[in-house]
Amino acid sequence: MILRSSPSSPFGRKCKISASLLGLVEKIEITRTNTTDPDDPIAKENPLAKIPALILDDGSIIYDSRVICEYFDNLAGGGKLFPGGDARWKALTLQALSDGILDAGILRVYENRFRPEEKRHPEWVARQKGKIDRALAYLEANTPEAGSAPTIGDVTLACALGYLDFRFEGEWRGGNPNLVAWLDRFADAVPAFGATIPSD
Amino acid sequence: MILRSSPSSPFGRKCKISASLLGLVEKIEITRTNTTDPDDPIAKENPLAKIPALILDDGSIIYDSRVICEYFDNLAGGGKLFPGGDARWKALTLQALSDGILDAGILRVYENRFRPEEKRHPEWVARQKGKIDRALAYLEANTPEAGSAPTIGDVTLACALGYLDFRFEGEWRGGNPNLVAWLDRFADAVPAFGATIPSD
Repeated sequence: MILRSSPSSPFGRKCKISASLLGLVEKIEITRTNTTDPDDPIAKENPLAKIPALILDDGSIIYDSRVICEYFDNLAGGGKLFPGGDARWKALTLQALSDGILDAGILRVYENRFRPEEKRHPEWVARQKGKIDRALAYLEANTPEAGSAPTIGDVTLACALGYLDFRFEGEWRGGNPNLVAWLDRFADAVPAFGATIPSD
Repeated sequence: MILRSSPSSPFGRKCKISASLLGLVEKIEITRTNTTDPDDPIAKENPLAKIPALILDDGSIIYDSRVICEYFDNLAGGGKLFPGGDARWKALTLQALSDGILDAGILRVYENRFRPEEKRHPEWVARQKGKIDRALAYLEANTPEAGSAPTIGDVTLACALGYLDFRFEGEWRGGNPNLVAWLDRFADAVPAFGATIPSD
């Protein structure tokens, strides 16, 4: 399998950490993608031109990160990062909330990357930041349990907080001591987190 | 259960059509949400302030539409809209692609809704339209099979095309006869599609 990703992509990071937790690293070749290069094949692999995409050995392609991570879980026997029973909906909702933090954070970054200064709109940026701040406040008051095996919800939350560190350094840490402690514990328990620190 | 939605939301429509296909309509109360009203409870129910959210009878809340639709599928016995085996990755990737069409279409709409005219950036809008156009070209050449039982991929594609009709009337239909025929067949086979035509 080939995972099309980039060192800066938080959604690619989800897949890399999931593969590591599931013991699949040796089965996956990671190749670098640049979504801003019009000649990069990613737009043919995934018409949305979004990272990541997974090219299977038969040539078929699956995406997005939620689908790839569940596919990995299934390859590893199933029910590991994607639990069954009531725990499933909790894990999947935490994944959705954390993906939503990422989507809002990426829109904040894209406001500068894809617009000249005179076309940037502070109210739009504040709207996205409001989503992140409410999500963090909820998660600070409802921090996931420590000690149990990580789910895809935990992996995604860790990638979301890691992305906030990468793009908005320090901003989220003030006022969220429970989440800071949670991320420290996650990083201690999951070596793939430290091995996938994002870079441009 | 209470489904928090709105008549204009394509992601809410996914949930409504799924509930209908799965025979769950009588178990679900739908209440109207307005994400632009700061007093609307949606931002407390889902910190991302996105539609839809599902409030379970025990008060717990799950989102987003992917999670809610899979929860519905599970309530109906599982394996219906979310098949097992290799068909699962095909259905989930079609859902991801169709959700991506929606995300790009919504960003086009938001460009006008949330920005004064002088802050709008045609290159950004064209970037989003490019994602939609590539996805449509891929789907026109790889139209899902007709006749088999619909999956969550089909439901999402129908909602994506329905959203393009709602917000960019007619634009997608030119040059995509296979997709137009596919949507006609879907609408004939799934009465809930016609019963959930979006409105503001």
